[in-house]
Parts: sequence; structure tokens; C-alpha cells
Amino acid sequence: MLWCGWGDPAKAADLPGPVRDLLAETLGVRAPGRPPAALGDVRLPPVALPAGLLAGLGALAGAGGLRTDDEARIGHTRGRSTPDLLRMRAGDAADAPDAVLLPGSHDEVEEALRYCSAHRIAVVPFGGGTSVVGGLTARRDGFAGVLALDLARLDRLVSVDAESKVAELEAGLRAPRAEELLAGHGLTLGHFPQSYEYATLGGFAATRSSGQASAGYGRFDDMVAGLTLATPRGTLRLGRAPKSAAGPDLRQLVLGSEGAFGVITSLRLRVREAPAETVYEGWRFATFAEGAAALRRLAQLGAAPAVIRLSDETETLVGGALPGGPAADGGCLAVAGHEVGDAAASRERAASVLAGLGGVPLGAEPGEAWARGRFTAPYLRDALLTAGATVETLETAAFWSNLPRLYDAVRSALHGALGQALVLCHISHVYETGASLYFTVVTAQTADPLDQWAGAKRAASEAIVAAGGTISHHHGVGRDHLAGYAAEIGDLGVDILRGVKERLDPAGILNPGVLIP
Amino acid sequence: MLWCGWGDPAKAADLPGPVRDLLAETLGVRAPGRPPAALGDVRLPPVALPAGLLAGLGALAGAGGLRTDDEARIGHTRGRSTPDLLRMRAGDAADAPDAVLLPGSHDEVEEALRYCSAHRIAVVPFGGGTSVVGGLTARRDGFAGVLALDLARLDRLVSVDAESKVAELEAGLRAPRAEELLAGHGLTLGHFPQSYEYATLGGFAATRSSGQASAGYGRFDDMVAGLTLATPRGTLRLGRAPKSAAGPDLRQLVLGSEGAFGVITSLRLRVREAPAETVYEGWRFATFAEGAAALRRLAQLGAAPAVIRLSDETETLVGGALPGGPAADGGCLAVAGHEVGDAAASRERAASVLAGLGGVPLGAEPGEAWARGRFTAPYLRDALLTAGATVETLETAAFWSNLPRLYDAVRSALHGALGQALVLCHISHVYETGASLYFTVVTAQTADPLDQWAGAKRAASEAIVAAGGTISHHHGVGRDHLAGYAAEIGDLGVDILRGVKERLDPAGILNPGVLIP
Repeated sequence: MLWCGWGDPAKAADLPGPVRDLLAETLGVRAPGRPPAALGDVRLPPVALPAGLLAGLGALAGAGGLRTDDEARIGHTRGRSTPDLLRMRAGDAADAPDAVLLPGSHDEVEEALRYCSAHRIAVVPFGGGTSVVGGLTARRDGFAGVLALDLARLDRLVSVDAESKVAELEAGLRAPRAEELLAGHGLTLGHFPQSYEYATLGGFAATRSSGQASAGYGRFDDMVAGLTLATPRGTLRLGRAPKSAAGPDLRQLVLGSEGAFGVITSLRLRVREAPAETVYEGWRFATFAEGAAALRRLAQLGAAPAVIRLSDETETLVGGALPGGPAADGGCLAVAGHEVGDAAASRERAASVLAGLGGVPLGAEPGEAWARGRFTAPYLRDALLTAGATVETLETAAFWSNLPRLYDAVRSALHGALGQALVLCHISHVYETGASLYFTVVTAQTADPLDQWAGAKRAASEAIVAAGGTISHHHGVGRDHLAGYAAEIGDLGVDILRGVKERLDPAGILNPGVLIP
Repeated sequence: MLWCGWGDPAKAADLPGPVRDLLAETLGVRAPGRPPAALGDVRLPPVALPAGLLAGLGALAGAGGLRTDDEARIGHTRGRSTPDLLRMRAGDAADAPDAVLLPGSHDEVEEALRYCSAHRIAVVPFGGGTSVVGGLTARRDGFAGVLALDLARLDRLVSVDAESKVAELEAGLRAPRAEELLAGHGLTLGHFPQSYEYATLGGFAATRSSGQASAGYGRFDDMVAGLTLATPRGTLRLGRAPKSAAGPDLRQLVLGSEGAFGVITSLRLRVREAPAETVYEGWRFATFAEGAAALRRLAQLGAAPAVIRLSDETETLVGGALPGGPAADGGCLAVAGHEVGDAAASRERAASVLAGLGGVPLGAEPGEAWARGRFTAPYLRDALLTAGATVETLETAAFWSNLPRLYDAVRSALHGALGQALVLCHISHVYETGASLYFTVVTAQTADPLDQWAGAKRAASEAIVAAGGTISHHHGVGRDHLAGYAAEIGDLGVDILRGVKERLDPAGILNPGVLIP
């Protein structure tokens, strides 16, 4: 992954002409822009861990298992949020870990956690490094140093139980490789979030990821039949049955724990037969409200296609203006993707509902345009930052009746904080009782874009909390959402997290500063 | 509810002649049997709580809110497990609470918990009183006394959000009354466990109940969008959205907490439009394995009817022998109940799968026979106990590939512990990755039926754990499953529970001895 941006540098996107024009005309974003610093100019602090501890860590993972070179440290610095990128593009690697450990097994992870507990070394569990909420930026104070624990070597498909449709996979597997291994058995996980090309299974679990096809395959937390968690105090193995009444579902306590309770080393995941065919298509609705009502009906009838999304008027307009972007010719574009089971039957069922509620079919092209670009938006962000725009995405969810209020509140907050800004929104995940809202905001960079970002983020987060939404539908808490999260679960909720943390990680070495307010 | 048995005394069942004959011939169960003690002969310990504390409690809930009369105390003694009934039938009410408090609001519950914390009074949250795992038998040692906190007065439908399909209901509502209130809005919860006629919504949540129509409506834990928990340290309010990535799902930590973390006072539940029609029918499979394969396919295709059950050969035989019982004429009986959405479409989809995998359609009668008797089995248990039989049910779940091993292990354990016994089994809840197994065991009572029960229960629980099943699919942990539960979640899992308990209930007054090993 590119050290100061997203993905494969060979795939870096140039900003299309129409977008450049739009930015100049509506937001005043003009050349010369803000190109990133050169790699050689990055300010990397010296390794803080003393030689004795480095030798101890090195002994834990064998040859090549510990790295302290600049490339490894820079490659494990923070995640891929907009402020993460702004800092890195400015040559600031102050949050770099002192070292990167690549354990080769669950037992090596557990040993490393014991070692780090004994020597007060902060540990950042590292999967794909795609966090957009500051989930990889541990506190340093009070620790001898910070270690990135990269799970890349835990990359096996351990077993497939074809009868139960359960596969055990190691947590460091990147999603495309996991799909490749499962495809060898005619199976699929069906989890395709925007971070798909880089993120790992362990990361999906630790952050309660939700894929673009969640209406068909479920969220990642729905897929977890069992898991293994390494903690400084030993191993927790959960999941003897699909469901149980034996006490609270402790799996659901580990899911979303963002490395603060332990390190997920393997997962037993529900898998499905790979579909024979996938079909994408576009629909137009006159208004966002009309489209939302149709999506709601689909979800409440159990007729939602695996992928079902609805862009608001602004996002539809901007999307249609992009070369190759999905066009709806006015109104609001909905995309339906039939990725599970019998695509034709799924299409027929959904079409009758959508058409009955004001939807106008636009045929395959807008759906296919969406599918072609489904993982490319993060590349565009790099180009926007270089052009001198500040761009950010944020997301929330609420019950259906509360969505209009939440939509208005977040838009007002962003406009209030940023002045002239483009605010786009879509619904990307639907449930019987509610849905997610995903916002993209673009504005001209000020002289201090980090400060600009912080003000807008604070305003948006406070608006989400005040309007009754959840502070995150699928990005997680990290450090950026701590205040909103604390408001959401209240003092007692925070106390529960502390009680659990104390039992599993008494020395507090696991991702300090992340998740727990 | 009958003080020493199940349900409405007017509905008490007499043992049908054929069952009496079967018991005599196969198990040696013969007259004169074991009739229960008279209510007047029950040995009820004196009220242990001192007058000062009783006065303090009385002041908390207003007039009529505190009861210490024999009827109230006996009516809140233990639950309805077989050993609970054996003890009560023998006139033993040693576990009776000292008093019963009936708070009228969430705030009164919270006040009561604070008061009991300050004065070391153990609190048993009491819903329908239908626990079959010892979930209502708190430890007394170290406490000034035991208070049953009966939520019966928290019985309102608070609000209906028709757009989001979410209804807020108070936790003390019995299920039939909740359905009645929802029916006024054209809605249903769709939760119909065997305890339906008596159990409360709060009890369903606290024990992770699963209804007979779980394949269509989901388990109770799937229905909970939000909840309010009163604890000695204040109130926890959870659930701002259907799903969230804001940390662990703390709702799933409260669900299944069996009154050990707090008292659930209200729930926001996902509701559905009431179905226009319900259709039940029977199918015959040559063997249990063949039928299980068909149920598995239904679940993995997403084509399972709301109710889908499969009896093994023995249960099919015994069920068919009961007057009015569902008959399959050999083999294994499956019952399909179409209770959600378009019953005809559900039937058609399921029928093509079942017929394709060896199922023989038996028409409506066996399905309707099952539906007529769906809540009556507990009445039969009372008659069996009176006849001199020991009867018990137990249940577990596992992934599909592990079900045959689990089935054999539990049957062997029960036969090993009891010698001559009738062991029946059915699958009653299916998932993509696995299913539940529900066993009924009948044997002749020994001179010490409690000891007989304990030996068989221990053997069955150990077999479940050793064969990789969960210690309970829908009954819960209570006190009877503590050992198996500890084995299932391991030392670290137990430690998590203790960490949470410590934060919410530092004085340890909430259902002491229950849930937490």
C-alpha cells in the first residue's frame, strides 16, 4: 500500500477534468494544489525501545519476524483516515511504531502479548492498516515503546466444513486472498466493503465491518460462528454452535473490540455457495425520501437485493458528472446488486417492489458502472487532497423514522463548520428497522487542513449524537469517535468496557487510547 | 400458575391410557404413583428479613407493592424445572423468597436495587417464573434475605414506531398480552416458545429465548433493537440503530445475563406485520439423518418455514401413539409451519426442497395436531410426575457436521445414567450452520428422584460439553448449567463475566449463584 495514500501506486487516479472544473467553480479549489512530501523528507522519530527489549521481541518471532527499518515503520504508521493522510503527506511520521513484529502463529501472538505486558510495551494489532478512525494510533505515554503486531503471516485457510458451511481462516488473511482460497471449494464469504482489496479478516471482526452486499450476506458480525482471541492472560475460544442461550454472547463482545481486549488470531466464518451469476442495475427515484421509502419496504418484506444503495440528489448529480460514473438523469439513483442465490428471482422480487413505489428502471449500465468503481473511491481522495481539497467520509445509522432528522442534522453541521462545501450522501446498508447514512464532504483546504478537519468532524459527530444516530455504522470507534461513543453508551457502558479490559489486559498494553473512552 | 406444577390448574392433563400402558410396559411405572403434597403441608421458612428492612422495602413501592404472605412467597419459589417441581411436590419451599416486591416503574426498580445493595438483600428478578434451569434460586449466604422483584406491574406497550417497525414494551408484559397489544396495530412479535402462555418479554431477553417460529421470526435476541437495564449503579440504555460498529454490541452482553447484571425494564423490539394466514403440515422422512439433511438444505437455501421441526424415530413413534398426537406412520415426522409473510409461497418453496430430499408429504393434519398441542407438553409433565415417572427435557445446539455425534453422546449418557428410559429427540431450531437438539427423557422414579435427576443431568451435561455442543440452546444457564457453562467459555470467559458484574453490581446482590460460575 502507498505509504502516504491509498492502495497500489500504479492505480493512482488523476482528477478528471469535470471534477477539477467543479471544484474550481463551486469551492474555489485551484492550482497549484498540495502535493505530498517526498518519502525521503519524512520525519521519523528514532526507535524508542531499548536494545534489550528489541532483542527479546526478536527472539519471539524468529528470523525476519521483527523489523525496525524505516520502510516497515512508515508502512505501519497510523491508518488511512483523512487526518492520517494529511499528516503523512506533510512528512509527519511521529506516530510510527518503534518496531513491527510478524508472529507466525497464535502461540507466538500470545507469547508476544505476555512479553509486552511484562515490559510495558504498547501493542497495536495491525491487519490491513485501513482504519479511517484513528484505530492504529496508540498512546505512547507510560510505555517503553510501541509495537505494531502485524498478522500478515497468519494467512491460512485452516479448514472447511462443507456440511455446516463454516470455514476456519486465520485473521491475517486479506479479503481477496480469503475469497480465492474459498473459491477453490465453490464457496464465498460475500464480504465486500470498500477496503476489500487491503483489509484483513481479523480487521473486519475487530471493527464490525459491513460489506456492500450486507443485505444479502449480512454484516461481518453476522458471519462469525467462532473465534480465537489471544490476550495477555491467555486464550479465549468462543463459538460451539450457531446460537446459544448459554449466557451473554461473548463473541459479540470481542467483535468491535478494536484490538483493545486481545488479538483475534482465527475465525470460524459462515460461508455460502458462490453465486452462479451477479446482476447489477440502476433505478431512479424522484426524491431521496421516496427512494428511502422503497428501500425500507424492500428490507421489511425481506426482498432486499444483496447490494441496495440510494444516493441523494447531490450525490446523484456529482456521480453522473464523473466520467464513467453512474448516471440517473436527475432525481436520486438507486443501485441494486443481485449477488446471492438466484439472481433472476432476486431481481424480479425487488423490481416489483421498487416499481410499485415510484422507481423508474434505468437498466444495467448505472449498476455496472457502480460495480466497476466499487473499490476505487479512496484513490480519488488522494487526487483530491493533492488538488488542494479536503475530503472526508463519515457514516452513521438510525431507525427509519429518525433518518430524515439525522440526514438534515449532519448536513447542517458540515455546512455550518465548513461554509462552502459539497456534501453528498447515500444509504448503503438497510435493515428491517433502519438504515445507514454515508456522507462524503469536499471543501477547499485552508492553511491548516488538520484544524479544518477537526472542527468539521467535531460538528458532525455532535450532530449525530444529538440526532440519535450511532456514532459509527461500520468504520468503528478508534480515537476519532471516542467522545461520541462515550455519549452513546453512557458512563455505565464505558465502565463495562473498562471492567472487561481490566480482566483481559491488566497492564493495559493493547491499543491504548483506542476504543475505550 | 399452579404452585407445584405448570399453568392453569383447570387445564391439568390426565395421562392418556396408551401412555399409562406404555409407561407400565416399557419402564415399569405403575400405580399408586406420587401425588403432590397439599398446599397446606408445604414447609415454608419464616421471613428472614428484619422488620426494619421490610418497612424500607415497603416504602419503595407504595401500597400493595410488597408482599410477605405465604401465597406470594410460595408463588415465587424457584422456577419450573423438574427438580423444582419435585421439591415443591414434596412440600419443600426452603428456597422461598422472604418477600415479593412489585415495583411500578423503572425508577422504582432502580431505587429498589440501590436499597438492596446498601442493605445486602439478594434480589431475584422475576418475570413469568418459568425457568427450567434453576434461574430463580438465588444463594442466601451472606445476605440479609432474598427479595423476589416481580415485574408484573411493568406491563405497558409504551410506543409503536410503525415506520421503523419497532415497538417499545415494558419487560413485565406476558407474551400473550404483548401480542394482543401489538395486534391492535396489525403487528406481531412472532415469539412463541413453549413457555409462551406465562413467560414475560424481560424473561425472554434475560435468557436468550428462542421461539418455535425462530426460523421465520428469528430468536428473541435477534428482535431486540434496544433495551433499558436498571442496575444498582444506575441505568444503561442501549440501541440507537439496528446495527452499529461503535464498539462491542453491549445489547448482546445484557441478553442472556439472567438477572445477574441488572433488571431489564423495557425493550424496543423489532415487530412484523401480522401474517394473513398460517399453514401447518407434516412430512415423513425415512430416517432422522435424512430428515436432518433436508432441514439443513432448507436453512442453507434461506427457504426454511418459520416453524420447522423434525422428530427422531422414537419421538415420532411416541407422538403418534398419543391421542390426537401427530402421526407419521413410521419413520421420522417433520412439521413445517408457515407463519411469516405469504404462507402459500413459503409452502411452495419449502415443499420443493423437502420433496426433493426424500420427504413424503403427510398433509395438514400432523402439522395442525402439532400446532394444537404446541404449548401443552408441560401439563403432561405434571401428570407423568404424579404417575411415578421422572421426566425431563434438555437441549443443546451444534454445527451441522457435529450433530450426529452430539445426538449419540447425549442418548448414551442418559441411557447409561438411567438404565431403562425412553429418550426422545427432535430438531426444533435450524440455522445455516447448525441446529438445536431437544431431548425428552422419561423413566421410572426411584426412591430419591432428585438424586436420580442429578445423576442423569450431570451425565447429559458432561456428554454435551465433551461432544462439542453448547450447554443450552434456549433454556439458559441458571444454576443447573454452571459447570457446563464454565467449561464452554473457559476461565477467561468467566473472568469477563466477573469483570462486568463487578462494575454493574459491586455488592453482588443480583441473582447471586445464577449464571456466573
